[in-house]
Amino acid sequence: MTLLPTQRTLAGDLAAAAEVGAVPEGGINRFAWTPELAEVTAWVGDELRRLGLEVEIDAAGNLLGRWPAPAGPAVMTASHLDTVPNGGAFDGVLGVLAAVQAIRILREEGFEPARPIWVGSFMDEEGTRFGTALFGSRAFCGVDVSEALEARDADGVSVAEAMAAQDRDPARIAEAHRVGEVGSYVELHIEQGPVLDTHGERLGVVESICGVLGLRVRLRGETNHAGSTPPEMRRDALAGASRVVVALREETLGRSDLRATVGQIRVAPGGRNVIPGVCEFTVDLRPAVPETFEGLQAWFGELVARIARQERLEPEIRCDYALEPTVMDPDVIAAIEAATREEGVEPFRMVSGAGHDAMLVGRRAAAGMLFVPSRDGISHSPSEWTETADCELGARVLARTLRRLASAT
Amino acid sequence: MTLLPTQRTLAGDLAAAAEVGAVPEGGINRFAWTPELAEVTAWVGDELRRLGLEVEIDAAGNLLGRWPAPAGPAVMTASHLDTVPNGGAFDGVLGVLAAVQAIRILREEGFEPARPIWVGSFMDEEGTRFGTALFGSRAFCGVDVSEALEARDADGVSVAEAMAAQDRDPARIAEAHRVGEVGSYVELHIEQGPVLDTHGERLGVVESICGVLGLRVRLRGETNHAGSTPPEMRRDALAGASRVVVALREETLGRSDLRATVGQIRVAPGGRNVIPGVCEFTVDLRPAVPETFEGLQAWFGELVARIARQERLEPEIRCDYALEPTVMDPDVIAAIEAATREEGVEPFRMVSGAGHDAMLVGRRAAAGMLFVPSRDGISHSPSEWTETADCELGARVLARTLRRLASAT
Repeated sequence: MTLLPTQRTLAGDLAAAAEVGAVPEGGINRFAWTPELAEVTAWVGDELRRLGLEVEIDAAGNLLGRWPAPAGPAVMTASHLDTVPNGGAFDGVLGVLAAVQAIRILREEGFEPARPIWVGSFMDEEGTRFGTALFGSRAFCGVDVSEALEARDADGVSVAEAMAAQDRDPARIAEAHRVGEVGSYVELHIEQGPVLDTHGERLGVVESICGVLGLRVRLRGETNHAGSTPPEMRRDALAGASRVVVALREETLGRSDLRATVGQIRVAPGGRNVIPGVCEFTVDLRPAVPETFEGLQAWFGELVARIARQERLEPEIRCDYALEPTVMDPDVIAAIEAATREEGVEPFRMVSGAGHDAMLVGRRAAAGMLFVPSRDGISHSPSEWTETADCELGARVLARTLRRLASAT
Repeated sequence: MTLLPTQRTLAGDLAAAAEVGAVPEGGINRFAWTPELAEVTAWVGDELRRLGLEVEIDAAGNLLGRWPAPAGPAVMTASHLDTVPNGGAFDGVLGVLAAVQAIRILREEGFEPARPIWVGSFMDEEGTRFGTALFGSRAFCGVDVSEALEARDADGVSVAEAMAAQDRDPARIAEAHRVGEVGSYVELHIEQGPVLDTHGERLGVVESICGVLGLRVRLRGETNHAGSTPPEMRRDALAGASRVVVALREETLGRSDLRATVGQIRVAPGGRNVIPGVCEFTVDLRPAVPETFEGLQAWFGELVARIARQERLEPEIRCDYALEPTVMDPDVIAAIEAATREEGVEPFRMVSGAGHDAMLVGRRAAAGMLFVPSRDGISHSPSEWTETADCELGARVLARTLRRLASAT
C-alpha cells in the first residue's frame, strides 16, 4: 500500500502517517531500518519532490529534501519519523510533516529563498530497535557511529545488516556528514511534558536542551533483624537511599536548571523483617545549562558521601552516560519569537528536558526549537495528542521562521 | 544414631545437639515435625528423665518435663529446639539445654522445690516448614490453631498429616492447653541483636517483647518523563515513599519504644528515565509497650497522609498482621535481676524486638526473659555464636531464678 495525502493538509498527513506501523494493541511501531519507516519516509520524500525539492536518502538513512538557493549555508528544519514501542502520532512525525506544510506555505506565497532550505527526517532518533538513539543526526553531525553499526536488535540483526538490506553501504556512512553545509537549524516538536498545557500556552521556544547524567548508586550497609537492632545501631541502606531521593527532590524544587529522577530502586536481601544491607538505584540528572552540567557529578558525589557518612554506609557511584546541555542560538530564538508574535501568539520560553536531534545539530550549527503543547503532558503513548490548531500554528510559525532565516544571506 | 551427652555439660550438650540436622552447606535444618526435631527432643527428654522429671510429649508436640512439688502453680522454663533454614547452634536450643543444665544444678544442690518446676520445648517456634510459627506455645496457651493444622509444607504435607505421622492426634490438640497450671514462666534466649555485645554487657533482662504491626503501603502518583516534567508538576511515588522512610528513621532515632523497618520496596514502571507512578513498600513497626501499640496504625496513617498530601499522591495502607507487645512481669524481672547479681553480674534492662514463645505465655502467666549476648548481633545464620562462659552464666542465673520462684508458694 502506498499512502497518498488525500487533502495535502497537515492534519490529513498526520492521520495518514499514523496508519503506517499502527499495531492492533494501540499506538505505532515504526522502528529504525524497518519497511514501515522506509515507507513513510519515501512517502514524505515524494511530497517534498512534488513541492520542488531535490530529495535523497543519505548514507545514514536520513531523508534530505533541498530547496536550492543562490548562496549558502542552508537553513534546515528536521525531526524524525521513527517511534518508541506503541508510540503516539505526533512525537517526531509532527516536526517532519509541519516542515512539509511550511514548504507548502512558502511555495504558495511564492517565496524565493536567499539561502537553501533543507527539510530532513533523521534516522533512528528513538533508538527503539537497536538502542542506537540519534543515529542519523549523529552521522549527519560527523560523530563516529561505527560502534552503533555493530549493535543488534532482539533478533540478532545488526544495524549494518539492516542498512545493507535497504541498499545503504555502512562503509560509506561518513558521507552523511553534511552539517558543515548548514548555517541554522530549527526543529518543531511536541513538548512531551505538561508545561505548555498547564500554563495554557500555545507555543514554547526552547532556550536550552538539558544534558543528561545517568548514574547508578550502590549503598552498602548491614543486613540485620528488624526487631532486635536498635535505630542507632542500624546501617540501613534504604534509609540512606531515601535521604538521597528526598535531598534531590528538595534541591530541585527550588531550581529551574536541574531535574532529578530516581526511576529504579532495589534492596537486598528484601525480607520484610530484615534491614536492607544493600540498596541500588539509578539517578537521572538533567542540567539545563553548561554551568550546571559542570561539576554536577562532583556535587552529587558530595551529597551522597554526606548522607552515607550520616547513615554509616559505603557509597559507590558509577556514571553510565554524560551528555552536556545544548544551548539554543539567540538569533534563531529571536527569529522563532518574532514569527510567533506575527501569528498573534506570545512565545513562552522554556527548557527541553527531553533529548532531540537538535541536541546534536545545535552543537555544530545555530539551532532553535519550538514546542507545541502535549495534552496532559502525555507522550510515548497511544494517547499522545496535540490539538490540530496548535499543530497548524506550529507549522505557520515554522514557515515564518524559515522565511526569516532564509531571507538573510 | 542416638546422641548421648558425653560430659553432661551445657557446652557438650550444645555441641551434641548441633549435629542433629546439620547440613553440608552449613548450619542446622531442624524443622517442625521432622525426624531430626523428634530425635533431639527425645534426647532432651531422656536427660530430663534421668534427672528425675516426669516427661511427656503433649498433644501439640511440645516436650514437657515436670519436677513435682506439693503445691501449684508451676514455675516453667522453656524455649524451642527447631531452627530457621541453615540456623545457628544457639537460637532456641540454648534455652532448652540451659534449662536442663539448671535442673542439674538444682539437683546437685539438693534443692526441694515448693512449687512444681516444668521444663519445656515448644513445637515449631520458627514456623520454617509450614509458616505456622509459635504453634506449640499457641496450643499450650489455648489459642485456636485449627487453621494452622491445615497449613502445608512445600511437599504438600499438612501439619495434621505430619502430626499423625508422629502419633499425635490433631483432634486432641486442645489437650495441649496447660498454661492454666503455670504460675510463672522464664525463658533464656540469645539476644539475636547487637545491644549486649556492643555495650559489653553479659546478661540482659527483658522488660517487654515488642509487638509487631506488619503494614503494606501503596502510593500512587503519576508516571511521567524524567526530562520533560518540572519538579513542581511531579507526582513522584518514590519521592513520597522516601519521605516516609526518612520520617520513620528520624522518628525512631529519638525513641526507645518503637522500631521501624522498610525491608521491601518496588517502583513501577521502573524505567531509569521515568518518574515512578507507583511505589509499594512494607513497613515493620515494633512497639515495645502497649501504650505505643495503641494508636500506632493511626499515627502511621497520619504520617503517610501528610506526606501524600505534600507530594500529591494517593495512599493506601493494608495491615497484614498486628501483635500487641507483651510486658514482662515485675516479680519475675526482680527474681532474674536478683539471681544475676548473686552471680556478681549487673543485669542490663532491655526490650526484645524479636518474638519468642514467652510472648504467648506472657499473656497468660507472669513471665520474664533473660538474654545472653550474640557475637556481633548475628543470628539465623551458621555464624551465630555465644561465648560458652555466657551460656553457662545464663544457665546459672536461670537455676537461681527457678530456685527463687519455686521456693515461694
